Parts: sequence; structure tokens; C-alpha cells
Amino acid sequence: MTQPAFGRLVILGLGLIGGSLAKALKARHAVREVVGWGHRETSLQIGKQLGVIDSYSLDLAEAVSGADIVVIATPTLIAEQMLVQLAPIVEPQTLITDVASVKGNLLHAAQRVFGAVPANLVLGHPIAGSERSGVNAANGDLFLHHRVILTPTAETDTDALERIRSMWQLTGAEVLEMTVAEHDRVLAATSHLPHVLAYALVDALAGDPAQRDIFRFAAGGFRDFTRIAASDPTMWRDIAIANRPALLAAIDQFSDHLGRLRTAIDQADGTSIMATFARAKEARDEFSELLRRQRPTTTSQE
Amino acid sequence: MTQPAFGRLVILGLGLIGGSLAKALKARHAVREVVGWGHRETSLQIGKQLGVIDSYSLDLAEAVSGADIVVIATPTLIAEQMLVQLAPIVEPQTLITDVASVKGNLLHAAQRVFGAVPANLVLGHPIAGSERSGVNAANGDLFLHHRVILTPTAETDTDALERIRSMWQLTGAEVLEMTVAEHDRVLAATSHLPHVLAYALVDALAGDPAQRDIFRFAAGGFRDFTRIAASDPTMWRDIAIANRPALLAAIDQFSDHLGRLRTAIDQADGTSIMATFARAKEARDEFSELLRRQRPTTTSQE
Repeated sequence: MTQPAFGRLVILGLGLIGGSLAKALKARHAVREVVGWGHRETSLQIGKQLGVIDSYSLDLAEAVSGADIVVIATPTLIAEQMLVQLAPIVEPQTLITDVASVKGNLLHAAQRVFGAVPANLVLGHPIAGSERSGVNAANGDLFLHHRVILTPTAETDTDALERIRSMWQLTGAEVLEMTVAEHDRVLAATSHLPHVLAYALVDALAGDPAQRDIFRFAAGGFRDFTRIAASDPTMWRDIAIANRPALLAAIDQFSDHLGRLRTAIDQADGTSIMATFARAKEARDEFSELLRRQRPTTTSQE
Repeated sequence: MTQPAFGRLVILGLGLIGGSLAKALKARHAVREVVGWGHRETSLQIGKQLGVIDSYSLDLAEAVSGADIVVIATPTLIAEQMLVQLAPIVEPQTLITDVASVKGNLLHAAQRVFGAVPANLVLGHPIAGSERSGVNAANGDLFLHHRVILTPTAETDTDALERIRSMWQLTGAEVLEMTVAEHDRVLAATSHLPHVLAYALVDALAGDPAQRDIFRFAAGGFRDFTRIAASDPTMWRDIAIANRPALLAAIDQFSDHLGRLRTAIDQADGTSIMATFARAKEARDEFSELLRRQRPTTTSQE
């Protein structure tokens, strides 16, 4: 029998993402044991019953003791707190990684807490999700053909990076690297800003209950466009706050474009309107083509 | 044999919508003859070969002579021109209707051209469509379970309104009435504004070709959110210009909301952000529920 690639894997915050990672690695016999930690014992009990984890602890020091890898899989803002709590207890050989949607706030927290970015910290972001949440929804194929972005810094240990990369590759994901700043800018533009726009639009239309009748006349385009406004508000509030600088820049860039388009519409400037719409259509068609070539499944979310 | 409900139906501009209307009425034996008119003889020839129309003419006066109903099914801005051309030749007993996405510009054109809104003019808007266009895509079930909004004025003849209503009901559509102003306001909010936002977002991200790489990291939410940016730019340029006043008001209302949300994010004001996101989610969930109850098919577009 071959040795599993990893020994003790500890999941902090056992929900959809952490549970799916555990399941994927267990299915490939890539891990000797998976330990869960969290505040809510119910989730941990369910995780154990489902076989997603092998054991759990409510005591953080006990959970991470002897760990090969600690995966911070809590909500975005709580992940900062986890670094604070981990700093005094984590062992030097233990790798720390995470799955949060924003990386800059965690990097800054790590610098604050550890004095410098630790060599064994590899921040990451699997771009995958589901409409369902919680460990009950854990799915070992969640990351298959999806992207995972790792954001190493100059301080990151090469071996630590390779270990985390191979962990994600074992789940069937495609692993990419970019800087923390680039990650947060790209995610602000392609995910966080669209969510903010969808929430703002639906709230603008429906904030006045007397106006909700308006939805009766909405057609297919509106349905697709506003689907993400049904996302979990707590999670997206946290992401908006965590990625504040990049998100504000993205909002401003968008508002600038919208303002110019507004002027063109106001002036009935068909040439300018057409130029914008046609450029956007061309880019969107390219995106469709990219999706067709790259991704066999279409279940991804962020 | 029962008499068909309508005699001579004339479609001006034989594309997806006009062709689908003709097909639906013919399938129900609701019309004695369907005549096509347009500038592009090829479309008319195809329409005849497919049996969508019985005959066609390139001469407008000849086409509309003896018509029970003339349906203006040209692109939005050309519809205004059609009223100008119809005014001197249309017979008093002929009903005029249309299928354009904006009603205010046509009402104003009618007032200009006819001196007052003619009693036999019933402006309408079937909220249905397809990713395909042209008479080849004509589909007799296109309007089934979809909404058609009629916008009669005080001048509209009651019998004329009932005839146009029954025409659409024969296609399986649900027919509603609202004022021209209300129609244009509702459509600006639920359809025209989302298209403008999607075009503006994709253009903001992709206007710089060096940035297009950004799409590689876009997840499912982005795909849905920007799908409408792949819509026909010419059609949407015309709609944006035709519905200028209502669309500008909708853009301003949205920008106002987005500005307030931007301030809340800038101040890391979690309470305000949460209030907006949660209100929007609640409204969007209500909308999902409405869709589940009301609409068996999910193929509608605008």
C-alpha cells in the first residue's frame, strides 16, 4: 500500500467548501486523517456521521496539534481571527492555507499577527461553490475542472506552495497562481462587483414594496441578470468589506463607464452607444467561446 | 366551417416576432390570409416558402390594401417611420398595432403624423423572444404563456382594443394593459436598464484588450449576469434611444442606489450593506417564487 500524500488534515469551519475538500481527498486516499474544528458541534457531528471527517475537536490547539495542513474554511472575516488564534499554537512544520474569496485582508492580518508573512502560509481561493451550503452539501467532485487560485508571496516556502498545489490538484482542480493584489482586483471585477450591482438593482426596484409589482413584467434577461442577488447577504457583506479597496476601484471604474454611456443615451448619440454595446457583445461572445472550450461542467459559483 | 376571426393580416417587417405571430394565428385557423411586406425580398420569399405568410408585396400600399390588421414588426426606430408611411394610405377600418419594446416614441410619432392618436391604433408589446432571429426562427408557440402588454389611450376604440387583445390571446399569451408611460417605465427598469448595466460592465472590463484575460477567472455568477451583453447591439441601441427619458430616470435611480452602497462599503458600514443585500435577496426570492407559480416555460427574453 502506498502512503497517503498527507497525514493529518485539519479543517477549521466545516461547511460546504471544507467538507468538499475533505471528501475529495479521502476519496483519493490522499490523506491519513481529517480532523474538524468549529464552534458548532452539530456540524462536526454530522460531518463525522457522513464520514467527511474522521474526528473533531472543539479545542483549536488540540485540533491543529501534529497537523500537516490546516485549512481555514470559515467565513471570510472570521478567517482573519483564525490567524490570530493560530499564531501562538501552530507548529512550524504545519502548512496553513485557506479558501476565502478575498486574499489581501488575510495577508495583512498575517503580517500583523506573525510580524511577517510566514513561509508556511499559502493563501488560496477555490472558485467553486453551490447554491447549497453546510457540510450536508459537501461534494467530493465540487472542485473538478474548477480553478483554484494560489497567491504565494516572496516569503512563501517553495515546498509549502508545491504541497498545497498538489492537494488541490488531487481534487481535480486546475491550480493557478497570481499575486494577492491581482487576485483581489480580478475577483472584484468579475465577481464582487457583479454581486454589488445585482443587489443594488434589485433593491432599487424593490426597495419600495409598492413597486414590487414591477417584477411581474420582468423577462428572461432580468431573471439571469439578478440571479446572484439571491446569494447569501452575510457572506457577500463580508466579502465587500474584506475586499473594500479593490471593490471600490471596480465600482468607480464601472460608474465611470455607466456615466459615459448615460451621456451618450442622453444625447441620442447612436454611434457612441453602438460602439459600447458592440464592443461589449464582442467581448461577451469571446467569453462564451472561452467557456465552451475550457469548462465541461457549468455548475460553478463563487 | 367557421369563419376565421380575422381576414387579411399584414406583417410589416417579417422577422422572428412577426413570423411567429403569423404562424400562431395560422395554426389556429384564426386568419384568412397573411401578407408580408418588407424591403428584403429574401426574407419574404423564405417566409412564403415556409408557409409563414401566404403572399407578399414590396409595395406598402398594395400590402395594406383591404387589411383587417396591420402589424408593425420592424425594428423599434423604423416603426416610427412606418407610421409616417402608413398615415396617407391606411384605410379607416384597418387596425394598426405593433410589437416594439418602447411605446412612448411611437405614441408621439402617431400624434405628430396623424394629428392625434388614431382610434384604430393599439400599441402593444409581446414580452417574448429568442436567441435566434429572422423568419427562419419563427415559432408558433413563441407567445404561449408569455405576456403581451397593450397600451391603449383614451382615444383608442374599444372594439379595436378587443380585436387586438383577442388576436394575442389566440397565440396563447396573457394580455395585460397599462399606460404608455407605465409600460416604458416598467420596461426601462426590468429590461432596458439591466441591458445597459451588463453592456457597461463587460465594456468596462474588456474595453482594454489587455484586460480580457480577466474573463478566464470569471465564475458562474458572472456568466449569468453578463449573458444579456451578448444581445444584438443594434436593437438595444435603438431601444435605448427610443426609451431615452424612462431609461435615463432608471439609470439615475440605480446610480443613486449604487452610490449609497458605495459609501456604505467605503465606511465598512456592515449594517447598511447588510440591509441592502438582505432586502434585495428577499425581493429576488419573491421574484423566483412568482416565476415558479406563473410561468411553466423559462425561455422568455425581451
